[in-house]
This record gives sequence, C-alpha cells and structure tokens, in this order.
Amino acid sequence: MAKRIYGSTPKQDGFRMPGEFEPQEHIFMIWPERPDNWRQGAKPAQKAFTEVAIAIAKHTPVTMLVNNSQYANCRARLPEHIRVVEMSSDDSWCRDCGPTFVINDKGEIRGVDWIFNAWGGLVDGLYFPWANDDAMAQKICDLQGIDSYRTDADSCPAGLDFILEGGSIHVDGEGTLITTEMCLLNPDAGRNVPNLDKEQIEMMLKEYLNLEKIIWIKDGIDPYETNGHIDDVACYIRPGEVACIWTEDPNHPFYEAAQAAYKTLSEATDAKGRKLKVYKMCMTKEPCYLKDAWSIDTATGAIPREEGEISIASYMNFLITNDAIILPQYGDENDALAVQQAQEMFPGYVIEPVMTTEVAYGGGNIHCITQQQPKV
Amino acid sequence: MAKRIYGSTPKQDGFRMPGEFEPQEHIFMIWPERPDNWRQGAKPAQKAFTEVAIAIAKHTPVTMLVNNSQYANCRARLPEHIRVVEMSSDDSWCRDCGPTFVINDKGEIRGVDWIFNAWGGLVDGLYFPWANDDAMAQKICDLQGIDSYRTDADSCPAGLDFILEGGSIHVDGEGTLITTEMCLLNPDAGRNVPNLDKEQIEMMLKEYLNLEKIIWIKDGIDPYETNGHIDDVACYIRPGEVACIWTEDPNHPFYEAAQAAYKTLSEATDAKGRKLKVYKMCMTKEPCYLKDAWSIDTATGAIPREEGEISIASYMNFLITNDAIILPQYGDENDALAVQQAQEMFPGYVIEPVMTTEVAYGGGNIHCITQQQPKV
Repeated sequence: MAKRIYGSTPKQDGFRMPGEFEPQEHIFMIWPERPDNWRQGAKPAQKAFTEVAIAIAKHTPVTMLVNNSQYANCRARLPEHIRVVEMSSDDSWCRDCGPTFVINDKGEIRGVDWIFNAWGGLVDGLYFPWANDDAMAQKICDLQGIDSYRTDADSCPAGLDFILEGGSIHVDGEGTLITTEMCLLNPDAGRNVPNLDKEQIEMMLKEYLNLEKIIWIKDGIDPYETNGHIDDVACYIRPGEVACIWTEDPNHPFYEAAQAAYKTLSEATDAKGRKLKVYKMCMTKEPCYLKDAWSIDTATGAIPREEGEISIASYMNFLITNDAIILPQYGDENDALAVQQAQEMFPGYVIEPVMTTEVAYGGGNIHCITQQQPKV
Repeated sequence: MAKRIYGSTPKQDGFRMPGEFEPQEHIFMIWPERPDNWRQGAKPAQKAFTEVAIAIAKHTPVTMLVNNSQYANCRARLPEHIRVVEMSSDDSWCRDCGPTFVINDKGEIRGVDWIFNAWGGLVDGLYFPWANDDAMAQKICDLQGIDSYRTDADSCPAGLDFILEGGSIHVDGEGTLITTEMCLLNPDAGRNVPNLDKEQIEMMLKEYLNLEKIIWIKDGIDPYETNGHIDDVACYIRPGEVACIWTEDPNHPFYEAAQAAYKTLSEATDAKGRKLKVYKMCMTKEPCYLKDAWSIDTATGAIPREEGEISIASYMNFLITNDAIILPQYGDENDALAVQQAQEMFPGYVIEPVMTTEVAYGGGNIHCITQQQPKV
C-alpha cells in the first residue's frame, strides 16, 4: 500500500519527523548526470557519489536512483551490494527533492512529499524544468510501499501550497526545528513568501513535522543557490545538542554568518525548554573556488558556472547514518580537524571521511545528496 | 545484493524453474503505452491491463512497471494497493522480456536474464529498438535484490549467446519443458538458429531451467508475431498434467495446430517417465479480427496492423497465480465454456475471468503480460 493521504497532517495523525541520529533503515541517493551542473560530463561527480555510497553502505543499505540513460553505467560503477533502481530525475539532490519520512509510536512510517521547485521556481530556481525531481518523493514512497502526504492545496487541510527542500530543515525529533530566515522567509527566493506569511509557514512546518518550536537562524552561507540552507550551517546531533560552523578568522567569507548562527543557537531554548549545547565545527582554511568551469556545459534554463566562483565547501554538510558520520573532506588544511571535531561530537561513532570537493563544485555535499528512511 | 553470476548455470548451482502452479510471491506487469501497437493511444489497453492487475492482486501482490512519461497517469488509474515503479520499456510484454526466476531447496531465488530481441531482432522482430525491454530483466532483479544469470557469451560457461522469451516455454518444475519448433527451431525467426543447432538449444534450456527432457510441439497458432509461442497452445497445470487447445471444427483457423499439439502431448512422456494427462481447452467459436486498425499509429520499425487481420485470442493464455486462474474472455460464445473447463482443470481454484480482447488486438494476452516471482 502506498496511498496519498488527504485532509490530515502528520501531527494530526500522530507522526513526527525523527532526528537524523535515530535508527535508519535505508539511504536514497540520485546518480549525478547533468553536464550543465557537473564538471566533465559528471564523471568526477559520479566517482565521488560512488565513494559516498560505498562509505554509507558500510553502515546502512543504499539505493541509488538513476535515469534510464545512465542505468547501465551506474550499475557497472557501483558495487553489487548497492541497489540500483531506475527513476527519472532532473539533478541529484535527494535531500531536497526526496520525501521527508515521519514515524509514529506504533512502528508505522509515512512520507511527506513537499512541493519542490528547484530552489526557487521561475523566480530564483537553478534549472527548468524540475518536474522529474518533484515527482521523486511520491515514486520513492511507492517503491517502498509507504503512504504519503503532499503539501499542496488539494491535500492539505489548510488548503495551502507549501514548497520546501529537506536541506533547509533540521529537527531534534522532540518538537524543535532549526532553519534559516534567508531561505524560508526570503521574499526573493521563489518559495512561499509572499503567498504565505511567517505564521502560516510555521504552522505548515509544525503540522507536517510535528513540532512545537522553530529556532530561526538569520542567514545561511549560500545565499544564491539554496538561499542559505541550514544543512551547511548547523544540525542536531542529539536532542538538546547541536553543531554549528565556526571560524575566528574575520576575513573568512562565512565569518559573520557563522558567528551569528553560533550566537543564536547558544541563546536558544528548545521545545522542551532546554538550553542548547553547541559544538563548534571548523570551516575550510581556504575557501573553495570552482576550477575548470569550462568543462561545465552552458544550457538554457540552468545558471552559468564561472571560473573561480566560490563553492560552498562546508564540513557541516555531513550525514549521520546509524553508527557513522559520513564527513566531507576537501583537501584543506582543516580536513583532519573536522574529523577530530566530528569524533568529539559523536563519541563511539565511526567517522567516514570522503573527499567530496567535486560535490561542492556542483552545489552541495554529502547531506544534500542523501535522504534517510528511518527504521520503525 | 543483486549480482551477476558468471561461469555457471542454474543447473550447476542447484536451481530450477518452478511450475507456474507453485507458490508465488509477486507478479510483474508493464504498463502499455506505444500508440503504434495499441489502439486509440493505448487507452483501452491500459484499462484492460488495469482490470487484469486488479484481478491478480486479489491473490498475489502486483508491481506495475511504467515509463516515466506515463507514471502519473498509471499511478492515478491503478488502485493504491498495486505498486507502481518507474522502469523504461519499449512495449509491455513482461512474460517475454522479464526474468525467468529459478529457485533451490535452500529457499534461495535467482533470475535468468535471457537475451531479448523483440521476437526476432532485425530479421523478424516486431519493433526497433528493443534495448529498454532487454534491460528490464536485470532491472527487475536489481529492484528485488535478486542475483541473476545472463545468457550471453560472456556469462555462459559454453560461451554462447542465447535468445529466449518466457512465453515460448512452460515447465512442470520437475525436469520437463514443453515448447514449439515453430519458435525455437525456426531458421527464419531471428532467434538462435542457425547460430545454434537443436542440440545446443536443448543444452541451454536444460542448463538454465534445470531440465532432463524437452517435449517438442511442432507448431503454435501465431506464426507471425511470436512465431508460435507455446503459451497460446498448451501449459502445465500440475506435474504430469497439461492443458491443450482443442476444437473439433475443421474450419477453425487453428484446427490443425490444435489437433497436432493435442496428439503430441497425448503421446508424450515426461522426464519422470509419466504419460501426460491432457485436458482440453476450447477456442473462441469465432476467430477474433482486429477492428479500428486506423487508430493504431504507423511508425518506422513497427509492423503495420491491418483492419480485419486475425488476432490470437486464446483462452489458453491464462495466468496461474497461487489459488487463482486469471482467464481471458473475448465476448465469444465459448467464454463460459472456457471458465467451466478451467474450473475442471483447477478444482478448488478461483477462476477470475477478465475481458481482454484489447490485449489480443495488441498481440497477446494475460500470460504474455505477466511474469511471476516464485515464493521461496
């Protein structure tokens, strides 16, 4: 059974989004392919995604979703224990176009299928069309036999259309969410503002993820592509404990955003009234600049990539998956420090560092290209 | 895990193809779409496939595989308890392009991924290209996490390429197979002859299905499209017992083929030395002629369909699935007799008659559009 649920919400039905640190059943990824986003025909990206998938699969089963055109290549490149399933996509950011899963106390799971518009639709989106990406959440739910909610006017009790990407939120699984104003409340970001006001946006988040409190961080570090997704800035590592990017170098391009986010989190209390413990996660010593932009296709409807433009290379964009942390590495002086800090935040976990500069060149990192199905 | 197995065969590894009457886990179907094979944009065919899927799903879970272009429509047309999974196809004959599953005594299952060339390749095939169809068996195995054998020169211990469609064979699960010379030994049918001789073809069948004996029926009733697939003519209903088409009307277009097949089966012994008990299955009183051929697209690479050409409407083309028989009906005077005869062959089974003239217009019927995954 994989039915659409109309006229109710996860909160009304007793479902909540668990924290990423809760037990996971499965990780979904999407095979990268588009030559107007990835360098050199996406071949280096495919290599990096393969390494990420292999690292994850040591801890949690992985399904790689792939366009028909790349099926045979993807199947040949990935080891046999990684499941490959054909599914049409426009690009490869499963965190953002995949479903957000919610669970209840009876061992049931459902999906939330947010409207996806490629990070801003015709206003501020990164490519056109995005219909395949928007259809993926339902297809993944159907594949897994999981019922789903769609956050559109037809399905939602409030009669609202609501656009969201999974990378713009992090939860503690106990009623609190952290996100950024730069993404969710930005009138120029092509999502819900001005159709919805802040109160309606909070209401939709609370209903679909089962929350009591939202902690608003002002800015992310990626104003142009994701419009400041939280998953480059901070995340929950346990209830009451968060990690946040940190630098003491005032010349670092993300210095101000990092300082401000750290301050906001340090002063915040969560839905249960707890003050948060905030761990510091370093940033790369040297900013990451796009190289070999010539090898990225020019295409109508995709934003052009320019030589030397800044790539968002954040150690924060890791994935927590069961007993492991899949952690980006960039060949930077601070790579080892990031591993050390991750180990301090997650004692007893296996830290799996994977070189993913190529994924950063494409606009995200390990958290952006993965989506977890929790265990029930 | 869904790995390719090289250098051995199911027989060598202790796997056998079970009879269709053995317990089943799942049925796969493919959503029809191509307007150059199906009437009126395939809409009536989609309706018929939907009714077949609903009838099967009362007894065995069904997955409908669908091209991306028809995903939303297919999902909307099928009830929620039928799983819909995107998978690219060229047409919709899962019996012929899907995997043949083999099982062992330890509760393990594997797939046989035959080379598929659209019923004759560039010599006698029904459309071009067929690469999506040929890729489906591996994709289905990967989807289900099932290891597979490919019958090509790279994988096969004998170093042979071997082409086969699932509709050209029926087995008793105890070492015997029935098939037709018209399909498997025909030098003009674009399959294995003349690259392989009869002995090699028998060897490949025996190795990949774990057989001791092959019973050869001379002709099928569909010389042009499938080149005489057995599944329009006869099938195993239990070990030692078969059903065979039958008519006493010498003017019926299939009279001679039916008489000859019945005689061959009546005189045959199986791998265990048993004489076969042969049940008679009636044919339609009136042959089925294609109507409204104008509504089928003309296309390069597909054979043209002409008004009034004969369609192969055989009651024999039923599916056995757990406790049910999914039985074609054509609006013919003999529909009720076919139901009665099926019930006599299968006492204690539920007979599910479904009107499928539209599927016959497209070139097959219920057995042709389904493929079972046995239970282990």
